[in-house]
Amino acid sequence: MENDRPYGREPHPSMNPHITLLTLGVDDLERAVAFYRDGLGFSTKGIIGTEFENGAVAFFNLQSGLKLALWPRKSLSADSGLPLRASSAIEFSIGHNVSSQHEVDAVMRQAEQAGAKIVKPAQPTFYGGYAGYFQDPDGHLWEVAFNPGFASLG
Amino acid sequence: MENDRPYGREPHPSMNPHITLLTLGVDDLERAVAFYRDGLGFSTKGIIGTEFENGAVAFFNLQSGLKLALWPRKSLSADSGLPLRASSAIEFSIGHNVSSQHEVDAVMRQAEQAGAKIVKPAQPTFYGGYAGYFQDPDGHLWEVAFNPGFASLG
Repeated sequence: MENDRPYGREPHPSMNPHITLLTLGVDDLERAVAFYRDGLGFSTKGIIGTEFENGAVAFFNLQSGLKLALWPRKSLSADSGLPLRASSAIEFSIGHNVSSQHEVDAVMRQAEQAGAKIVKPAQPTFYGGYAGYFQDPDGHLWEVAFNPGFASLG
Repeated sequence: MENDRPYGREPHPSMNPHITLLTLGVDDLERAVAFYRDGLGFSTKGIIGTEFENGAVAFFNLQSGLKLALWPRKSLSADSGLPLRASSAIEFSIGHNVSSQHEVDAVMRQAEQAGAKIVKPAQPTFYGGYAGYFQDPDGHLWEVAFNPGFASLG
């Protein structure tokens, strides 16, 4: 039978494909918290962990099981042992998919009012959707997108 | 009454605090797909979109409502209009929280066998947890952590 395995179990249980936290390195923690909390309206208890060296951090609850953290780049560097270096805005992007073009426009407008840099105004995409990019105060790239076929990808 | 608003609705509906996609910029798409699919065991339909300029991409389903994408850095640069530049490993980290120290060790071992670079072997953390860091083939930083207090943050 297809599911029969020699010793009745998976020999190498595999990593569960999930992410619980996305930590963004920031240069000014208070500025970053203000952007996400006051500008985008994300909810947070504010900066915690200031009693620890490199501990100051702010967490935001996203959807169930996922948090966003803002943590100084120098703390991430110290904790991981990786050197500080010039930042790069094309290491990753954060996708925020919404249900309509109208909603893309509304989120892009909110981000701009919050002080984001509009990198690419919302416009039709090659795959038949509609999307725009903005950068947060630390240069982290967000893509706000309406893509009717999104759920079927992956 | 607390919920009474002048015109019966929120004047500025706020951005929903959720992320639907985390896109990682990669230098070698096939190598990156092999790492996540074959090494970590994440499920994917493989590379799609090759018929479009800068369209080649691979998606992986993470937990409900969230996907991981691997996309060449040059495509992310071309699509966003942001310049290619030297990569930086401390822009962000991806947190993978698990339920025990044993599970941290198992995931770190699996990542190492998959070809990840172990940046910091799993060890006790300042907040009373247990965690290690690894980098994927493009230098993206993952933290594998056991943190009993994680759910109450944010």
